[in-house]
Amino acid sequence: MEQLKGACIIGQSGGPTAVINASLYGAISAAFAAPEITRVLGAHHGIAGILADDLYDLNAEDRAELDLLPFTPSSALGSCRYKLKDPDKETAEFEKLLSIFKKYDVRYFFYIGGNDSMDTCEKVSRYMAKSGYPIRVMGIPKTIDNDLAGTDHCPGYGSAAKFIATSMMEVYKDCRVYDKRTITVVEVMGRNAGWLTAAASLASKFGEGPDLVYLPERAFVMSEFIDRALEIYERQGGVLIAASEGIRTADGKLVIEAEGENGDNFVDSFGHVQLGGVAALLSSRLSQRTDAKVRAIELSLLQRCASHCASKTDIDEAIMAGSAAVKAAVAGDSGKMAAFEVSRSGGYSCSVKFVPLTTSANAENCVPDAWITDGGLTDEFADYVMPLIQGEPERPLRHSLPRFTTLKRVKA
Amino acid sequence: MEQLKGACIIGQSGGPTAVINASLYGAISAAFAAPEITRVLGAHHGIAGILADDLYDLNAEDRAELDLLPFTPSSALGSCRYKLKDPDKETAEFEKLLSIFKKYDVRYFFYIGGNDSMDTCEKVSRYMAKSGYPIRVMGIPKTIDNDLAGTDHCPGYGSAAKFIATSMMEVYKDCRVYDKRTITVVEVMGRNAGWLTAAASLASKFGEGPDLVYLPERAFVMSEFIDRALEIYERQGGVLIAASEGIRTADGKLVIEAEGENGDNFVDSFGHVQLGGVAALLSSRLSQRTDAKVRAIELSLLQRCASHCASKTDIDEAIMAGSAAVKAAVAGDSGKMAAFEVSRSGGYSCSVKFVPLTTSANAENCVPDAWITDGGLTDEFADYVMPLIQGEPERPLRHSLPRFTTLKRVKA
Repeated sequence: MEQLKGACIIGQSGGPTAVINASLYGAISAAFAAPEITRVLGAHHGIAGILADDLYDLNAEDRAELDLLPFTPSSALGSCRYKLKDPDKETAEFEKLLSIFKKYDVRYFFYIGGNDSMDTCEKVSRYMAKSGYPIRVMGIPKTIDNDLAGTDHCPGYGSAAKFIATSMMEVYKDCRVYDKRTITVVEVMGRNAGWLTAAASLASKFGEGPDLVYLPERAFVMSEFIDRALEIYERQGGVLIAASEGIRTADGKLVIEAEGENGDNFVDSFGHVQLGGVAALLSSRLSQRTDAKVRAIELSLLQRCASHCASKTDIDEAIMAGSAAVKAAVAGDSGKMAAFEVSRSGGYSCSVKFVPLTTSANAENCVPDAWITDGGLTDEFADYVMPLIQGEPERPLRHSLPRFTTLKRVKA
Repeated sequence: MEQLKGACIIGQSGGPTAVINASLYGAISAAFAAPEITRVLGAHHGIAGILADDLYDLNAEDRAELDLLPFTPSSALGSCRYKLKDPDKETAEFEKLLSIFKKYDVRYFFYIGGNDSMDTCEKVSRYMAKSGYPIRVMGIPKTIDNDLAGTDHCPGYGSAAKFIATSMMEVYKDCRVYDKRTITVVEVMGRNAGWLTAAASLASKFGEGPDLVYLPERAFVMSEFIDRALEIYERQGGVLIAASEGIRTADGKLVIEAEGENGDNFVDSFGHVQLGGVAALLSSRLSQRTDAKVRAIELSLLQRCASHCASKTDIDEAIMAGSAAVKAAVAGDSGKMAAFEVSRSGGYSCSVKFVPLTTSANAENCVPDAWITDGGLTDEFADYVMPLIQGEPERPLRHSLPRFTTLKRVKA
């Protein structure tokens, strides 16, 4: 493969995770080490920042601050939710991108993100190939949702799963403390895939987790849920439930929308349905049928940014994915996403393979049906996810609070 | 002082914390070590358990499981919210208590809890003294609210403060990630005292915390809040707000109640006001005035049970308080609460002193007015609280998830 010399742009996109900056760190480190990469640029707010010629000179950053990236949640370069048009139909955006690439002599483009970001990557790759501009484009996966196709799992998921399982164990202890027991409904993120909510079941492996777990993958029937929760309450005196924000009725409607139509106030003052109100909704429905104290908890943003409870395995793998993508591009690869190939027999081992960007651009990977039981998950699920949450990173602290990175953000 | 030989009962009461079991551990360990204490009993669900003759034989527990207590959140013995009557007026409950004490030859009673628990302690102590039954009664403080009078601070507060400050730093990073910035309102516990909400301001010390902090100690004016939040949003593009669940209007009404009367649906299906809806309320009010994305986050139970983010100082001091109370009782003291005396000049040091139970039985200690600024806290507050959150405990783990204690709970 021909040597390609020039600058690189690294961007971050979509919802942040606890370890997306670890992938950024892996990519930056490998780019610094590659003689073919003459300059390392960061896109401010992803592809939107490139289009706006809003780039940072990452070579100007202090190395000590960059070393904090793996322990800093959220996207240090800024993120966006910008969807590029189809380059076969509308080329204006891509012409603009090309002009920016030419301006900075960019020959490498690395994009860290989920499904939509791989779609962005794929479109950029396709247009640039068609235009004859030599550039290598690689996707680096991240998503707490763990829904990317073509990879065993996604960086970001392990840390979110660990925080969710840990918090469920703590809440389990808390909500059984009184003589008068309670029903507690914990709402977990995940609109279409139930991986995050399923992680709550890890706590149940040790007898300190939810009694019931509801994923978007299975149709949710309100009356059955209520009967079941109350039956457990009568029998054992305290119930813990984990429910995905994305649970749906048999006809595919979000429960929060379907029930809202039944006369409830789960819309905001503008009439918009308030997603993220599943715990409140289920609690309200339970309250109508029992005198038990019912409490709703939303894990909210905490589950995607809780770097203080990150998995070392997740951080290490996120760095590995970022680094491998850069090295593969320098070696000549393009139009691929760094994916994980895992062996679980005889101990867990994970390596990077490369799959076409199209693999994950428009596919969503859900929890296998065979792993879902009636209100819970099988041991196969635990065997799958347990290795991903292992290990405690040595987090840099300042006065026992997190010491996050602060970038200088020098304009390129 | 005369030597007093017999059994002891240890009980836990009120809302649990991350370190109330650390105090239990300190008390159990000191009791095991004292030749005067012949048997160590645990009250199942506090004073209610004693009245029901529901006691555990703590001598029957495995030491290895007891050693996990300092790292296990919630109350391992079970808690209650039972208020004893005035022993000068109604003696039936106290006669029952006395019969139980006699049945097990109980000569020491240790009660771990907050204001109400110290009130319980004081009443038991008063009645038993009057009845001539020799028993030594000691209170061991705990509360995440930090509102107990007579002590520099309370076990449980440091760990909750650390979790709140850490989470605020993480949320700060997360909610500034997009090019389109957001307004985020985080709701923190504390009905009357603002200590917990104030802890959010520690994050601001490092430039990664809330722009505005609202405590129950200062009258809350909705219109001023909205104007201020929107002014900051216009100026800097992203706003983070910490608000106590207990914020009140100038006439002392809970904001959540006062605004509910204005036509909003912050009541449940039975018409009860839903406390813990301050973030939702403030977000709703902001949404009516701006197109910005506004998000409400409740830290909910997580803030009082997040032992994975506990302060080692808090754990160590909780153990110290439990242990000191037992030792003092054995040495002859009674009718007191173990309190903290702190020196902050020339480095932080904390020791136990004993104050009369009446000191903290019916007083609430709020954040000093001089430490509250307009929407924030002074450096004096940070100097006060920062030592309390220091140090990372070596938490026992199992597959990278918490390894909590499981007691055998053998009936006495």
